[in-house]
Amino acid sequence: MKKKVLSISPLLLFAALPAYAQAPTVESLELSINLVWVMLGAVLVFFMHAGFTLVETGFTRAKNSLNIIMKNFITISIVSILYYFVGFGFMFGDSANGIIGTNGFLLSGREDIDFFVFQAMFAATSITIISGAVAERIRISSYILIAVAMSVIVYPVIGHWIWTGDGWLAQLGFTDFAGSTVVHLTGAIAALTVVIFLGPRIGKYTGKKVNVIPGHNIPLGALGVFVLWLGWFGFNGASTLAADTTLVPHVIATTLLSTSAAFVTSALYTKIRFGKIDPSISLNGVLGGLVGITAGAADISILGSIIVGFVSGILLVEGVRFLDTKVRVDDPVGAIAVHGICGIWGTLAIGLFSTSSGLFYGAGASQLGIQAIGVLAVIIYTMLIVSVVTVVINFILPIRVSSQDEIAGLDYSEHGSYAYEWSQTLLERVINGSEEKPEHGLGLADRLNNLTHGTVKSKTS
Amino acid sequence: MKKKVLSISPLLLFAALPAYAQAPTVESLELSINLVWVMLGAVLVFFMHAGFTLVETGFTRAKNSLNIIMKNFITISIVSILYYFVGFGFMFGDSANGIIGTNGFLLSGREDIDFFVFQAMFAATSITIISGAVAERIRISSYILIAVAMSVIVYPVIGHWIWTGDGWLAQLGFTDFAGSTVVHLTGAIAALTVVIFLGPRIGKYTGKKVNVIPGHNIPLGALGVFVLWLGWFGFNGASTLAADTTLVPHVIATTLLSTSAAFVTSALYTKIRFGKIDPSISLNGVLGGLVGITAGAADISILGSIIVGFVSGILLVEGVRFLDTKVRVDDPVGAIAVHGICGIWGTLAIGLFSTSSGLFYGAGASQLGIQAIGVLAVIIYTMLIVSVVTVVINFILPIRVSSQDEIAGLDYSEHGSYAYEWSQTLLERVINGSEEKPEHGLGLADRLNNLTHGTVKSKTS
Amino acid sequence: MKKKVLSISPLLLFAALPAYAQAPTVESLELSINLVWVMLGAVLVFFMHAGFTLVETGFTRAKNSLNIIMKNFITISIVSILYYFVGFGFMFGDSANGIIGTNGFLLSGREDIDFFVFQAMFAATSITIISGAVAERIRISSYILIAVAMSVIVYPVIGHWIWTGDGWLAQLGFTDFAGSTVVHLTGAIAALTVVIFLGPRIGKYTGKKVNVIPGHNIPLGALGVFVLWLGWFGFNGASTLAADTTLVPHVIATTLLSTSAAFVTSALYTKIRFGKIDPSISLNGVLGGLVGITAGAADISILGSIIVGFVSGILLVEGVRFLDTKVRVDDPVGAIAVHGICGIWGTLAIGLFSTSSGLFYGAGASQLGIQAIGVLAVIIYTMLIVSVVTVVINFILPIRVSSQDEIAGLDYSEHGSYAYEWSQTLLERVINGSEEKPEHGLGLADRLNNLTHGTVKSKTS
Repeated sequence: MKKKVLSISPLLLFAALPAYAQAPTVESLELSINLVWVMLGAVLVFFMHAGFTLVETGFTRAKNSLNIIMKNFITISIVSILYYFVGFGFMFGDSANGIIGTNGFLLSGREDIDFFVFQAMFAATSITIISGAVAERIRISSYILIAVAMSVIVYPVIGHWIWTGDGWLAQLGFTDFAGSTVVHLTGAIAALTVVIFLGPRIGKYTGKKVNVIPGHNIPLGALGVFVLWLGWFGFNGASTLAADTTLVPHVIATTLLSTSAAFVTSALYTKIRFGKIDPSISLNGVLGGLVGITAGAADISILGSIIVGFVSGILLVEGVRFLDTKVRVDDPVGAIAVHGICGIWGTLAIGLFSTSSGLFYGAGASQLGIQAIGVLAVIIYTMLIVSVVTVVINFILPIRVSSQDEIAGLDYSEHGSYAYEWSQTLLERVINGSEEKPEHGLGLADRLNNLTHGTVKSKTS
Repeated sequence: MKKKVLSISPLLLFAALPAYAQAPTVESLELSINLVWVMLGAVLVFFMHAGFTLVETGFTRAKNSLNIIMKNFITISIVSILYYFVGFGFMFGDSANGIIGTNGFLLSGREDIDFFVFQAMFAATSITIISGAVAERIRISSYILIAVAMSVIVYPVIGHWIWTGDGWLAQLGFTDFAGSTVVHLTGAIAALTVVIFLGPRIGKYTGKKVNVIPGHNIPLGALGVFVLWLGWFGFNGASTLAADTTLVPHVIATTLLSTSAAFVTSALYTKIRFGKIDPSISLNGVLGGLVGITAGAADISILGSIIVGFVSGILLVEGVRFLDTKVRVDDPVGAIAVHGICGIWGTLAIGLFSTSSGLFYGAGASQLGIQAIGVLAVIIYTMLIVSVVTVVINFILPIRVSSQDEIAGLDYSEHGSYAYEWSQTLLERVINGSEEKPEHGLGLADRLNNLTHGTVKSKTS
Repeated sequence: MKKKVLSISPLLLFAALPAYAQAPTVESLELSINLVWVMLGAVLVFFMHAGFTLVETGFTRAKNSLNIIMKNFITISIVSILYYFVGFGFMFGDSANGIIGTNGFLLSGREDIDFFVFQAMFAATSITIISGAVAERIRISSYILIAVAMSVIVYPVIGHWIWTGDGWLAQLGFTDFAGSTVVHLTGAIAALTVVIFLGPRIGKYTGKKVNVIPGHNIPLGALGVFVLWLGWFGFNGASTLAADTTLVPHVIATTLLSTSAAFVTSALYTKIRFGKIDPSISLNGVLGGLVGITAGAADISILGSIIVGFVSGILLVEGVRFLDTKVRVDDPVGAIAVHGICGIWGTLAIGLFSTSSGLFYGAGASQLGIQAIGVLAVIIYTMLIVSVVTVVINFILPIRVSSQDEIAGLDYSEHGSYAYEWSQTLLERVINGSEEKPEHGLGLADRLNNLTHGTVKSKTS
C-alpha cells in the first residue's frame, strides 16, 4: 500500500499550518467571528440530514426503514466527496459565460474551506430531497447513480447561475437568499422526474381509489421536523455568511415566524377542510413554511414573512392533496409539495414582498417576472437532465425493484435485515396486559380472544 | 389577494439593510460576538421543544402521541407569533408602574431583534410545560386557548416584574438569573391549576389505589432528556446575553455539575427508597436538576451548585411521589414536580447559596425573604388568572374530552389517526422468532401457544 | 441542614463576578470568540452522549434499553463530578515527572473553566465507550465502580502523558490532535478488558456457531450515528481551542470527508463481501471513520483524510468480523472495533500522512515509531489497571448479573420496569390490518390464521 499512496502524495496539497502565533487584529477577529457563525450554520445544516432521515423513515412503512437510512447516509457522504472533487468547482469556479464554473476542483487555489463545507451541506440537502419521494420502491444502485449525476451536473450548475455574480440568472437580477429555488426546487423537480419514471407504490392507486399508506412511526417523523426546523436556522441564518448584527437576527426572526404561521394555518386549514387537525399534513406544513421563507428571509419584513408563511401553510395542504389525488404522483413523504410548490411560492414571494423590489412595496412587477424566469429555467434544466440520466440508468438496470422485493420490503430485499426486532417478551406483555407480574393472568389464547370480541376493553390501553 | 395584502403593507415596517460595507470596529465586533452567542442560545432553546415533545410522548401512552406532538408544535408556533404581536411589548416595553410593559408591539421601535428571538423561545418553554401535565385528556381547542392566555396576560407580565429593571419584584431585589421562577414556576403553576380543573386520567386512581400508567417509549423520553439538557446550556448559558469570558464558563459549569449531581442523587435515592434505580424518576431528576440551578447559575459557586443539585434530586423524587400519591394530582410526566417544586427550590437557593447575598455566605436572610415573596406572588398571580381563564373556557366547551374519546385515545378522537403502524410482517416475525427465514418454523398458533405456556423460553428475547 | 452546609461554605471558593462594565479590547474579544467556539464544541460533545445512548440502545435488545440509558446518564454525571474534583487536576495539573498532574483539584487556582467543561465532556466520552461493549450483562453497580476508576486513575493519567507539554509521551513527540488514542483507544481497551472478564452474552456462541443477536431499533441507532457525527464536529473542531480561521475549517473538512469516505467504503465493502449493503456495519463505518481521523484531523491534508477514511471503512468491517468470529469477543455494538482498531489506525496514520512528519511526505518513519510506542503504552497501562480493578470488584460481587436476570432482561432485573409499553389497541390494529375502522374485518383468530398460512398476503405491510 505504501507505494500506491506515495504515488499520489503530490496531490496532498494542503498542509495545516497552526496560526496561533499571530497577534489578533480587528480584521482577523472579524474573520474569526464570521467563521464561528458559518461553522455553526454548517453543522446545523449537516444535522438536517438526520431530520430528513427521521421524517422519511417515520412517514413510510417499517419494512423500508433501513433502506431509507442508507440512502440518506449515502447522500451526505457521496455528495460531500463529489462536491470536493468537482461540484464546488463547477459551482463557484471562474465562470464560463455565466453557465458553469471552471476551476477550484479539489479546492485547489481556494482558501475558503469554511465556505466549501457550508456549501457542501447545501448540495447534500438538495439531493437528499429525492430520497423521500422515491422511497419504498427505488433500487438503491439507481439512487446512487442519480445522486452522483445531481452532484456533478445538475445542482452545481444551477447554483452557479444563481449564487455567483457572473451567473446568468444572477445577472438578470434573480434573487434567492438561501435557496428556495437553488436547493429546494431543484431537489423537488429531480424528485418529481424520477417519481414519474418510477410510478406509484404497489397498492397506492387501485382503480379510481387513492389509498392512504400511513407512516409507521410519526413521533420519529415529528422529531425529524423539529431537527429540520433547528437546522434551518443555520441554513437561512448563516447564509448571511457573516455575523451581521442587523441581518442575522432578521433572518432568524423571519424563519421562526413564517414557519410558525405556516404550521398554524396548515393545522387550522386541515381542521376546516377535513374536520380534524391532521398531524402528518400539519407537520409537513412546518417544512413548507421553512421552504417558503428560504428565498426571502433577508428581503421580506417580519410581518411580510408571517403572510408568506400563512400562504405556504395553505399551499402545502392543497399541494399535497393535488399531487396525491389529482396528478396521482405517489410521493410517500410529500417532498415534492414541500420543496417544489412551496419552493416556487417562496421564490415568487420575493417579487411580491421584498421591501426593496416587491410589487406590494410599489416596485412594480419586474422582480416577479425575473423570479418566474428563474423558476422556469430551473424546472426545465433539472427535468431535462434528470430525465436523460434516469432513462440511461433504467436502460442498464431497472430503476425500480421487483414487485416481490417491494412487497417484502426493501430492508429485506436490498439489505437482508430488518429495522426492528420486537421481543416475544414484549408481545406477551401486550397480550397479557401490562401488569408487572402477569403470572396469573389469562392464557394467551384467551386474551387474544378477548381482544377480538371485547369492544371497550380492547381499547383500554 | 393582491389588494388585501397591499392594504396592510404600511405595517410592513422593517426593511432588511445589508450592512456588509461598514468597516468593523472593536465595538461592532463585540456586538457580533454577543449576537453569535445569543443566537446559539436561541436555537438551543428552540430545540428544547423537541426535547419536551419527546419526554411527553415517551412518558405517556402510544394512543396519545400525535396529540402531544401537535400541542407542542402549536405552543412554539402560537407563542412565537403572539409574543411578536403583544407579549414582547408587555414584557419589555416601557413600564407602567412596574406592572406591565406598554410599547414595542410588533417590534416597533425596537432594534434588538436577537433579544426578541431569544425571549420568544423562553416564553414558549414556559407555556409548553403545561402540555405535559394535562396530557391524555385535555381537549386540544381548550389547550390552545389556555396557551393564548398564557402568552398574552400571564407570562409576559411576570417576566416584566422580574426581568426588567422597573419591574416591582426586580425593584425589591428579587433575583432569577435564567428563569427558575419566571419560566418554570409560572409554567408549573399554570399546569397545576389546569390539572386541578381537569382531574386525573381514567384509571389513575381507583378507590384508594394509585395506579401506575407507564409511558410507552422511555428511550424516546430519555432522548428528550438529553435534548433538554443540551438546550439548557443555551437557556442558562446565553442568559448572560454576552460572550462574557468569566460568566459564561461559570454558568455552563454550574449547569453541568448541578444537573449531574441531581441525576446521581435521584438515581441513588430511588435505589435506597425503592430498592432499584428507577429510570423514569431518575430521568426526571435530570430535569429537576436543570430547573433547580436555573435561577442561580450565575450567582452560586460551582461547589454550591453541586449541593443545590443534590437537593434537587431528592426533592424531585419526593415531590413526584407526594403529588402523585398524597395530593393525587395526576401529572403524567411529572412536570409540576420538575418545574414547580424544583423551580421554587432553585429560586430560594439563591437566598442560601448566592456568593454575594446568600445566607450561607453571611449575608443574612433578607435575600431569602425576597425570593420567597417573588415565589408567592408568581404562584398567586398565575393561579388566579389561569383559574379564571380555565373556568371561562370550560363554560363554553368542556376542557376535557369525553370518557369515550379518552379511552379511545386522543390521536384517534382528536386527529383521526395513529402514531404507529406496526406491520403484520413484524408481528409475524416476533411470533415466529427472529430467525432470518422462518419458513420451516412452527405454525403461528403453535408459537402463540408456546408463548403462553413456555416459561423460560418465552422470555428468551 | 443549614448548619451542615455552613460548615462546608469555606470551600465555596468561586464567586461569579459580572464583567459587563469593562470596555472591550482586541485581546478580550479574541478570548470571547474562542470562548464561543469552545463552548459550542463542548455542548456538541455533550450531545454525543445522546448519540452513544441511541446507538447502544438501538443496536441491542429491547429488554436492556433502560439499563443502557441509565449507564450513559450515570457516565456523564459521575465523570463530570469526579473530573471536577480530581480528574482535571490529575490531567492538567503541574506535572510530577511527566506522569500525573498534582494540583487544580476542585478547579482551585484555575481560571480556564471553559477548558475544564470541554475536557470533562471528553473524559465522559472515553468512559462511555465501555458501556456499549459490556451491554446486556454487566451489573450496574460494577459498571459504576469501573467508571469511577477510569475517571480517576486511567483516563486523566493517559491524558496527562499526551495532552500536556510535560507528559512523557508528548515529550517523545507523540501526536494525537483530538484523541484517537487518548479518548477512543483508552475507552476501547478498557471495554475489551472488561468484556474478557465478563464473557459473551448467553446465546451468542453456541458450540462452533456464532449467532447474530440483532439490535431492536436500528432507526434509533442510525439517529445516534448522526448525532455522534454532529457532535464530532465539535469534538475535533473545537480541539483547536481557538476560532482559528485556517485550522478550524481544515479540521471540519477532514472530519466531514474522511468520515464520508469511511461510510462509502464500509458500505461498498459489505456489498462486495456479503452481497448486500449491511446497514448496521455501514453505520459503524461512519463511527470508525470519525475515530480514524480524530488524531490527524489537523495534520493530514484533505485528500489524505479521504484515504485515511477509506482505510478506516474497510478496517472497521474486517475488525468487527475478526473480533466477533475469530477472537470471539462479544461486543454487542462493535465499540471495540470502532474505537480500538480505528483508534490505533488513526494514531498510526499520522506517522504516514502528516504533512509535516509523515512517512509518505518524505519525513521518514520516526513519527510512525513514536505513534506506535504511544499506542502500546496506552494499551498496556489501561489493560493493567482495568484488569486489577475488575478483579477486585468481581471479588466483592460478581460483575455479571445472574443468567436468570440476563434472560429476563436487565430492564426488569436491574430496574423493575420496561422500556416499551405497546398497547393492545396497537396489537389489535396490526392483526386486523390498518384500515381506519376495522369493525367488519375478520375476527382476530382468523387473521392470525391468515398470518400463518398466507404467504404473500402476510408480507403485504
